[in-house]
Order: sequence, then structure tokens, then C-alpha cells
Amino acid sequence: MSIIKNLIAGSWEESAETFITPLGTFSSATKVAVDRALIAAKESFQAFAETTTQERANFLKDLIHCLAANKDEIIAAYTAESQLPAARADGEFGRTIGQILRFVELLEEGNYLQPIIESKEGTADLRKMNHPIGPIAVFGASNFPLAFSTAGGDSISAFAAGCPVIVKSHPYHPYTSFKVASAIHQAVMNSGLPAGIFSHLQAEGHELGQDLVLHPLLKGVGFTGSFKGGKALYDMAQQRPEPIPVFAEMGSVNPMVILPHALANKEDLAKQLVDSITLGSGQFCTNPGLIIALGSAHERAVFEEALIRCIQTKEKQPMVHQSILTQFESKLNQHQKELKVVGGVPAAMGFTIATAFLKNLHWAEEVFGPYSLFIGCEQLTEVEAILNSLDGQLTLSLIGDDKDHKDVARLLPLAQEKAGRILFEGVPTGVAVTQAMMHGGPFPASTDNRFSAVGTDAIFRWLRPIAYQDCPDALLPPALQKKNPLHLSRVVNGVLTKESQ
Amino acid sequence: MSIIKNLIAGSWEESAETFITPLGTFSSATKVAVDRALIAAKESFQAFAETTTQERANFLKDLIHCLAANKDEIIAAYTAESQLPAARADGEFGRTIGQILRFVELLEEGNYLQPIIESKEGTADLRKMNHPIGPIAVFGASNFPLAFSTAGGDSISAFAAGCPVIVKSHPYHPYTSFKVASAIHQAVMNSGLPAGIFSHLQAEGHELGQDLVLHPLLKGVGFTGSFKGGKALYDMAQQRPEPIPVFAEMGSVNPMVILPHALANKEDLAKQLVDSITLGSGQFCTNPGLIIALGSAHERAVFEEALIRCIQTKEKQPMVHQSILTQFESKLNQHQKELKVVGGVPAAMGFTIATAFLKNLHWAEEVFGPYSLFIGCEQLTEVEAILNSLDGQLTLSLIGDDKDHKDVARLLPLAQEKAGRILFEGVPTGVAVTQAMMHGGPFPASTDNRFSAVGTDAIFRWLRPIAYQDCPDALLPPALQKKNPLHLSRVVNGVLTKESQ
Repeated sequence: MSIIKNLIAGSWEESAETFITPLGTFSSATKVAVDRALIAAKESFQAFAETTTQERANFLKDLIHCLAANKDEIIAAYTAESQLPAARADGEFGRTIGQILRFVELLEEGNYLQPIIESKEGTADLRKMNHPIGPIAVFGASNFPLAFSTAGGDSISAFAAGCPVIVKSHPYHPYTSFKVASAIHQAVMNSGLPAGIFSHLQAEGHELGQDLVLHPLLKGVGFTGSFKGGKALYDMAQQRPEPIPVFAEMGSVNPMVILPHALANKEDLAKQLVDSITLGSGQFCTNPGLIIALGSAHERAVFEEALIRCIQTKEKQPMVHQSILTQFESKLNQHQKELKVVGGVPAAMGFTIATAFLKNLHWAEEVFGPYSLFIGCEQLTEVEAILNSLDGQLTLSLIGDDKDHKDVARLLPLAQEKAGRILFEGVPTGVAVTQAMMHGGPFPASTDNRFSAVGTDAIFRWLRPIAYQDCPDALLPPALQKKNPLHLSRVVNGVLTKESQ
Repeated sequence: MSIIKNLIAGSWEESAETFITPLGTFSSATKVAVDRALIAAKESFQAFAETTTQERANFLKDLIHCLAANKDEIIAAYTAESQLPAARADGEFGRTIGQILRFVELLEEGNYLQPIIESKEGTADLRKMNHPIGPIAVFGASNFPLAFSTAGGDSISAFAAGCPVIVKSHPYHPYTSFKVASAIHQAVMNSGLPAGIFSHLQAEGHELGQDLVLHPLLKGVGFTGSFKGGKALYDMAQQRPEPIPVFAEMGSVNPMVILPHALANKEDLAKQLVDSITLGSGQFCTNPGLIIALGSAHERAVFEEALIRCIQTKEKQPMVHQSILTQFESKLNQHQKELKVVGGVPAAMGFTIATAFLKNLHWAEEVFGPYSLFIGCEQLTEVEAILNSLDGQLTLSLIGDDKDHKDVARLLPLAQEKAGRILFEGVPTGVAVTQAMMHGGPFPASTDNRFSAVGTDAIFRWLRPIAYQDCPDALLPPALQKKNPLHLSRVVNGVLTKESQ
């Protein structure tokens, strides 16, 4: 088998060092490769930034074709490398394609450029719009080899913005990443875009990531993964001579509060919860890790029994990687020592009560995998104390029926303080790729909770406004020109309009 | 004279330590005061965040009345404390009032909440809008005792967002700040808002600022001032256990490129430039510090003479503070040793050529005051080399007439890379408070160039989106309720509309 090379601005290159996985021998990217990728990215940036939104939409459409044409190989790599089943691979492939389509639509509509025009007799003519910020590094996520990795939301939103992308493949699935990178490379070539807008680098250790984040030409970072990894990249990026934004989505325990009437009445709630906890073997960032149930001892006991019955029906599913399983087992073991735990590797739940939890706040730490801690509460003040004790979260659920509304209303301010998305029904797993999605929450759920990592608003992470004062019309970007050639909705002197100005 | 106290959440308080200025004896705020101010801010946050946009607009309108009612005292404090003339104080007072009015209009329109709704049969109902992030610390600016200080753009945009504000007064004008803070306090009381939404703290050294930025309940920082001060606050904030955003506007040299035909034809350009350089004694963050002139040796010599004539007509104006004058003299003296400098404290210009400048890049460092460095260039490539050598800038001007368009077009990508606002006519001093303004540029001009510090878009610094999934209508914030009771423009299933949904 030949060595799997790094892609540096359109050319596949080998280095002296390699690493080996069951799927092949991979050339390790060096600091020199990082430097060349970044120089090429910077050189291609202006041309890419100046492509029209339609040209970038066409590139993304071509990418969809290139991915579809290689779907079988990509799925084969995914299942061989990740231990996840083919159905999951197929579903994630579909999500990845759907995600790219959303950005095609965003580009074809064009309003994300947010053109704002102030043009009145006697004052300066001022026109502002969003521009791409420059080369972006994307770190593949362990738990989503497709949808949050090489052609995932970070890369696609950066491409849509007009930013060159350098992907560092995740060491758990470098071959899948290589296959996807080949499709991106093909789409770049087909579209006649500068080759420098995409590089794909691979290595085993942390050094490549450090070299990338510290490179002076890099302008931003997208990351999905652990707190430890995300925070390390964030700190490095902030200590550069020129700090750059790092959008690290670092997960959370996604607390779900079950209020008394919901607890008493919703018979299928236990099943829904356990399904959510075990979905994808609990390896989703919105996996509910804390179930805070308010109700009488009797109702909690009935609910607890229902949960346990559901857990026991679950069959073992594979984790994405052996090392994630090992970590899960070790953390589960710790809980088993300290509290009542039912179930094991396929699906497990711990059971405690508020007073015990509040004395053992380390139980709130994420146990990444199919595990959730059930905390029984006697009073609403205990629920409040628990929520107050928690860090920032991606999601927080307040599950109640009509008769619980007063309690839900009382908890809502706390939920707003702690989370980026608040649910009132259902379960937090399942993150819709729409403009209304907010996937990101107060630290440490993510490093910048003003931006979403999922949905089309993710593009705003890679944009900054530039204002043009008294610019000759012919020199203005089309989005700001008087005749509004792109037919955008623009704010002109405070009024949203598609008229010329 | 009685001791001037700190305002902590509605109560005027003394501490054991004081500092003295010609205008009075001031109680120094301690770490205990910071803690009490932040606890009160946090306690008042939810109630303030839940006020309607109209209630916050009414508060800001009341603040305008309270400031106007105390205008004479505020202007008297300003002129006594800052050495700046009454006309400047009056102008800045007007700008401050005008700025508050812009935010009143923004709140009464309400679209900054950016409601986005995805609601379709068969999928989860998802509704997202902007929410305030929490208590904000505002550091008064030395060079704008009113418009960028206690009731300046940072404080007003944070109040408009629904964030409590803790102002640290600038030690150059604590009495002016106290007078303005008294007006804010009055407006808070008149409006029946919780007293915790505003505190005003004063001290001489850096310790108070550190205690503020490091306080765990603080959620954001607004700062206008030096690179050294802004970067120190930024670093502190990033190294907290929970990093928080710091919007530090740290100024720049605002390069102006004069292209050949403009240089040859625009007779009044020299006067316009020198007026801009000396405006407010050169103490504006958009003061043009580098004039990069492309043209023949003859034309540059003619222009240079015109500049020198203009400089010599300028009379001495006061600097805002003696220490700024001292720093200016010291930096000017350095330039005088190294290159040809004409003029002195009232107005000065250095003169050099591209080849010399490129060997002495430290000449590009900001000389804060009425000074600008003129760099003569023979070729466009020299202009490019100079721009390439520069750091990020608030503004960059490309001044040409019709025949220079080709050169302007060639330089435009560099200008986009380096600056937040690009001018094609006029001078960069004069920063309009409109939605289309971008006041902020690539680092080190500011710490986050995705946000503007001037104009109504400054409110986005203090907001983060929260998504509500399947929320009962009665529990939704009004901006997201089905009937659209606030009559906002909302994106509903991808379409902007004022309809109910």
C-alpha cells in the first residue's frame, strides 16, 4: 500500500516521518508543511475572498457531487476506521451533504453579507458589509468523522465565507479524512479556484495542531472536542503576538429538569430519555448527562424503575474508538464506587438525590458515553441549587406539562444564564442545521457563546465588517454598489430594502 | 470640600483610602467595593435583562434629561479637569447626547434582537434571539471625557443591551466622571430600575481595573485607550478561569495614501490634512499619523511645502492632560533626532522617503498628538511595501482622483486586510455614530475586529443568542411569541416578515 500523503495547496506531498494505522501508512505533516500551507492560503485568500457568492455556491455544489461520487469509499473508510455501524455512517453522510446544501442556499440568498448603507446629502457616504477574515484551521472531531470533521460545519462555513481552510485530520479517522479531503481537492480543481484555499494535514501527536494555531498567517480556529483540547488551543491562540478567535465547542452535560407533572404523567418519557442517553452510544455533544427530577419519593421511584427497565433493554453499541471506551469505563467505574449505578457499558445510569449531589459536585463532570446521572429532588429550591452549581451548557431542558408552567417560568432565568439552547419538550440530541439553531453555550461549553457552531449562522464566526467611506461606485464590492446588482436586502438609511442606493 | 464617594449600586460610599486632585478628594474604591458592585450587578441582571426595549429606551431618554439638566456643571468639571477648551467640551457633550439618542431609536425599533424562527409541521419549533451577556466593566478613555467615558458609547450600548454597567472612571477626569455618574444614578432612580445596574468606581492606580476584570461575575469589558493598557486587560481576561470578551479599541496610525493625481491636483488637500492632524490637538484615535504620498519628486516637494505652510499657521492647543503632552514631546524628540521634523508642539510633521522608512519601521509607531510622518514614494510598489509593513489599523485612506482609480483598485485588497474602515475622500477624523460605521480594526487596532465600538452595531458586543426549542408561547420572550407583539421584522422559515408565526 502506498503512503497516504498530505495535501498542501493542491499538491500531494510526502515527508520523512510516517505513522501507521490498520488502514495504511500516513505521511506526518511537519512544521514546514504547515508553513507552506499557510503561505499558499494567504496567497490565495484575496482571490477567494473576491469570488462571488454564486461562485462559492457552485464550488459547494460541486463538492456535494464529488462526495456523492465517492460515497461508498468514504463509508467503507468510516466503518473500518471508527467501529461505528454503516447505518450511522450513512446517516452522518446525509447530514454532511444536507449541511453543505444549507450553505449553498445561504450563499445564493446572500443576505449574510449584511450590507448597511448610510447615504445622505451633506454627510459622508458610508457602506459596510461582512468580509472573510482569512485562513482558518479546522480540527476534525473524534465523534463525528464526517459532519464535524473534514467537510463538516466548520470547513463548509469557512469556505462559504470565503476563507481558505487547513484541516488537521483527527488521528482516530485519518483515512476517512483523506478520502473526504480528496473530494474537496477535486471540487477545488473542478471549480477553477486557487489550490491554496485547501490543505489537508495529518499527524499523530499534538505538535501539528500547535504549529497550526501558532502560525502568524492563521486568522481563526474551529474545533469540536474535549475541554482539555479546546482550552489548550484557545490559550495558545490568545497568547500569540496577534491573538486570533478560537471557536471551540467543548461539550457539556446538558442537564434535563423533569418537573412534577411531567414526571407523574409522561409514561414514555423514561424511554425517550434512555434512547437519547444511548443514541450514538452517548457520543453526541448534546447527550443528556444529568436528569434532575422533581417530584414525590413515590413518583421518582416509579420513574426510576421505568428508566432501569429501559436501560436493561439496550444492547451494546460500539464506541467510535477503543480509547473512548476505555475512558468511559474508567469514569463509570468511579461513579460505581461512589453511588448507585445501574447498567454498564451499553447503557448506564447513576441514581442519587439532591443533597448528596450538592456535596459531590464532581459528579457533574461529563462522562462521555451512554451514561446519565439521575438526581431526585424534593423541592424546587434544590433544583435551583443544582442548576446554580453547574457550569455553562450547550443545552438545558425544562420538561414540564401545562401544570408545571409556573415552575418552568421560575427556572427559565437560570436556564438562560447557563445554556445556549433551552428545550421544553423532547431531548437535546438532534441538532437541526437551520438558521434558528444555537449550538454553543456559556464557557466552558464553548469558548465564544456569541456564535453557533451548527446551522447557517456559523458563517458569522469567519466574518468581520469593513466600512467604505465615499468609495467610487466602481470600486465598491457588488453588494454595496448603488444599483444593488446582487438584489440583496440592504439596510439603507435605517430601512431594509432591495432598492438601489 | 466633602469627599467624593464611589457609587455602589445606588449608594454613595466612602472607603478608608483617598486620592486628591485639584478638583477634590476622592474616595478610592477597594476590592470589597468591586465585589459588592458585581454582586449587586448580578442580582439586578435578570430583572434588567427582562425589561422591555421600550423601558430601556425610556431610561436612556431620562438619562438625556438628567445630563442636560446638569450640563453646566459637567462642562465646568470637564474644562477644569481636562485643559480642553469649552467649545470642545460642548461639542463632545452634544456628541454624547446624540449617541444616546441613536440607541433610543435602536431600542424603539427593536430589530437588533434578531429574532429567527423555524417552525414547520413535523419538526421541532426553534426560536432564537439575542440576550444580554451580563455585567460589563467600562473603562473611561483619557481623550474623550464624555463621549468615550462614563456615559459614552460603551456604557450606553451595554445599558441598551440590558447589561448592568460598572464604570471605572479615568484618573485624568474623575470629577467629570462623578458628575456624569450622578446623572446616570438619577436616571436609574427615576426609571425605577434596580440600583444594581450601575456602579461608579474610582481610584488612581491599576489595581482597581485588575480587580474588576478578574471578578468572576463580570461578563465583558469595554476599553478605549493605549495598546499597553488594552492588551494588559485583554490578557488578564483571557487567563481567567472563565475567559470573557474584552473590546479594547487601542488606536492606530491611520495611514493615508495620496495617489499621484490627487497629489498634483488637490490644492486644498494639504490644508485638509494638517487640519485633521491637529484636530483636537491630534488626540483622536483616527488621527492620521502616516501620509504616504506617491508622485514625482517635484510634486511631492510642492505638496511638502504646502504642508509646512499649513503647519506654521497652527496655534498651540492644549492636550487633554500634562502627561500626554510630556509623552508627545518625548516621542517627537525621538523623531527629531532621526529625521527631518518641521514644527513642534502645536503641530509637527516629519518628512522621509520610502526607502528610509522601510529601514526604520519603528517610525510607524503612534506618536499620540498633533504629528504625522510624511513618506514620499517614487513607485506604487513602495506604497505596497509600506502598507504591508504596517499592523492592523482603525482606518486606512486611499486618496485619489478619477485617474488614480487603477492604483486605488490595486491597493484596495491591502487596505481591506489592514483596516476596519477605508476612506476614499476626506480625512479619517470624524467618526459618524451610525449603523454603517465600523470603528475597530485588525489587531492591534482593536482586540476583536468583528465588532464596532462606535455606532449602533456596538450593541452586538454585549449580546449572545439563545435558542428556545418547543417553548410554550406564554413562556417565550415577547420578541419570539407567535403573535409578534413587538411588531419586529423576524426571519421566519428563512423569510423576513412582520407576520405572526
